[in-house]
Amino acid sequence: MCKTHVLSVPSAKAPFEKTTIERRELRPDDILIDIKFSGICHTDINNAYDEWGGGIFPMVPGHEIAGIVEAVGSEVTKFAIGDRVGVGCFVDSCGECEYCLKGEEQYCTKGAVQTYSSLDYDGNPTYGGYSQKIVVKEGFVIRIPDALELDEASPLLCAGITTYSPLKHWNAGPGKKVAIVGMGGLGHVAIQFAHAMGAEVTVLSRSANKQEEALSFGADHYFSTSDPGTFTELAGRFDLILNTVSANLDMDAYLSLLRVDGTLVNIGAPAEQSKYSVFSLLLGRRSLAGSLVGGIQETQEMLDFAAEHRVVPKIEVIHADQVGDAFERILRSDVRYRFVIDISTL
Amino acid sequence: MCKTHVLSVPSAKAPFEKTTIERRELRPDDILIDIKFSGICHTDINNAYDEWGGGIFPMVPGHEIAGIVEAVGSEVTKFAIGDRVGVGCFVDSCGECEYCLKGEEQYCTKGAVQTYSSLDYDGNPTYGGYSQKIVVKEGFVIRIPDALELDEASPLLCAGITTYSPLKHWNAGPGKKVAIVGMGGLGHVAIQFAHAMGAEVTVLSRSANKQEEALSFGADHYFSTSDPGTFTELAGRFDLILNTVSANLDMDAYLSLLRVDGTLVNIGAPAEQSKYSVFSLLLGRRSLAGSLVGGIQETQEMLDFAAEHRVVPKIEVIHADQVGDAFERILRSDVRYRFVIDISTL
Repeated sequence: MCKTHVLSVPSAKAPFEKTTIERRELRPDDILIDIKFSGICHTDINNAYDEWGGGIFPMVPGHEIAGIVEAVGSEVTKFAIGDRVGVGCFVDSCGECEYCLKGEEQYCTKGAVQTYSSLDYDGNPTYGGYSQKIVVKEGFVIRIPDALELDEASPLLCAGITTYSPLKHWNAGPGKKVAIVGMGGLGHVAIQFAHAMGAEVTVLSRSANKQEEALSFGADHYFSTSDPGTFTELAGRFDLILNTVSANLDMDAYLSLLRVDGTLVNIGAPAEQSKYSVFSLLLGRRSLAGSLVGGIQETQEMLDFAAEHRVVPKIEVIHADQVGDAFERILRSDVRYRFVIDISTL
Repeated sequence: MCKTHVLSVPSAKAPFEKTTIERRELRPDDILIDIKFSGICHTDINNAYDEWGGGIFPMVPGHEIAGIVEAVGSEVTKFAIGDRVGVGCFVDSCGECEYCLKGEEQYCTKGAVQTYSSLDYDGNPTYGGYSQKIVVKEGFVIRIPDALELDEASPLLCAGITTYSPLKHWNAGPGKKVAIVGMGGLGHVAIQFAHAMGAEVTVLSRSANKQEEALSFGADHYFSTSDPGTFTELAGRFDLILNTVSANLDMDAYLSLLRVDGTLVNIGAPAEQSKYSVFSLLLGRRSLAGSLVGGIQETQEMLDFAAEHRVVPKIEVIHADQVGDAFERILRSDVRYRFVIDISTL
């Protein structure tokens, strides 16, 4: 066992406390990671506030983890001490179901073990990356390419794979018109990936004031959704719409922007049900879909792609004692575009 | 011009009247069809009651038309007098947009001309198949294979293509588990097509009393959706769910029956919006889609497939003066499974 300092939420909505927890002894296939940076994801707030229910408290959030290998178990072969590594949204899966065998552990039939606020298969709760150290099974650790800084790599472990995977799955690429709805933590990375994949990228954002930055991320077009003319002008335009917004939008308005056989993929998750008219789907054989992060192999592929194409989250590095404030600022959309905790300040 | 007897609805919800209308003079590419049978589709009721708005009255419903070629225009090459032919949901399209060029005229950018309650490109209203004669452009006429009786072929022109097209598009076939929701006019044909395509077919119907007939149509399994245990037992089971029901269902319950990457396709259309939780899509990369009839070429392919595999709607042939009663019976779900008007009684 190894004691480690963490930022912990004692109960739903309670303020963070600095405290310590125990990490397990290294098993033969385990890796001990010295965490350097941990990104803050919007779902950390959903979980710390227990908005979806079922949260396990005390909770140590964080599933955008970047650090250095500090020790390895006796049977670890893929990593060595000193390697630059990351951990994303889950830390174990059954390894035997058809989805695990296909490398899509996020859809594991038994249920993948989430990086925090989850029960490990041994029955112990998991604690995430707002922490100095973490112990993770080798198969769930990703190598961070040298071309990426650790702080900028950390948000890619969730925001990166969450956007990369659906863009890849629904064939964003040359000749395809892709819209990214929302330009926040997810959206600003999605723009870069879609552009790097070769698609024609349109950003649909509420305000008009992020246009310049959207274009700098690689967007070809930018439209404000506050302008009703946007929906007329862009009717029937897109092959793929990636909706990164967690609030409930007018789905029929967005579906009307799809071409025949187009797909609107949700990666943000409103707590309430969404509404749509079946006619919006019927009249153009359109689809409404959802996508959840990505598998381990695809996450590695995403990081390698990001390194090669310079897909880099725009981050604000904060101290450990600023995390509560950062939550507040995220809720006010006052962040461009992702907070990353400097774990050395913990 | 040629005068023809019709069943006409003078205004929304009014009773049918026997009257006459004029059909246009044959243009060089037109065909005059002596209608023998005309199927009654649920949307005939939606339109005659003007439930979706925009109905053009007086209205002559009917888009499941089967008859014999009585005369052909001077440039018609594909059909001759005496040929057995059918007409479905639309009678013209622009012929130039990318969807028309792909043979998906139902998604024509200019808007396909519907067989009735629509404006033709010349500005005249269209009148449908509850009629003794109809004049239709050659390119929108389908050949009815000899192996199909005209009366049993007529419902295939809408109910057939509406179910065949999505089953084909979403790859129903060997190794695929397909659920058909609802066993009415659409559903009982969908079961036969999915079975003939080689899929493993499960019928999900409210009542338990259609089981024997479902199995006779080729279903492998039958479950009553009134039994909550059905949704537990079938969780994560299907690659494809074809929802033929026009009423609003609990979409989240049905989405939970899909495997990862599964699709629920709506072909019925409730007037009100439907609701879903984004989590139902996210947690298995599932899709909610819609599909609208099919193109002319695919409709021909569907009829040929139906003839080859003996996919035959189960029909009740009625007299022209029974159409009002038939509407009432459809609204009470008192039909197994499709009414067809014997036009000789008009």
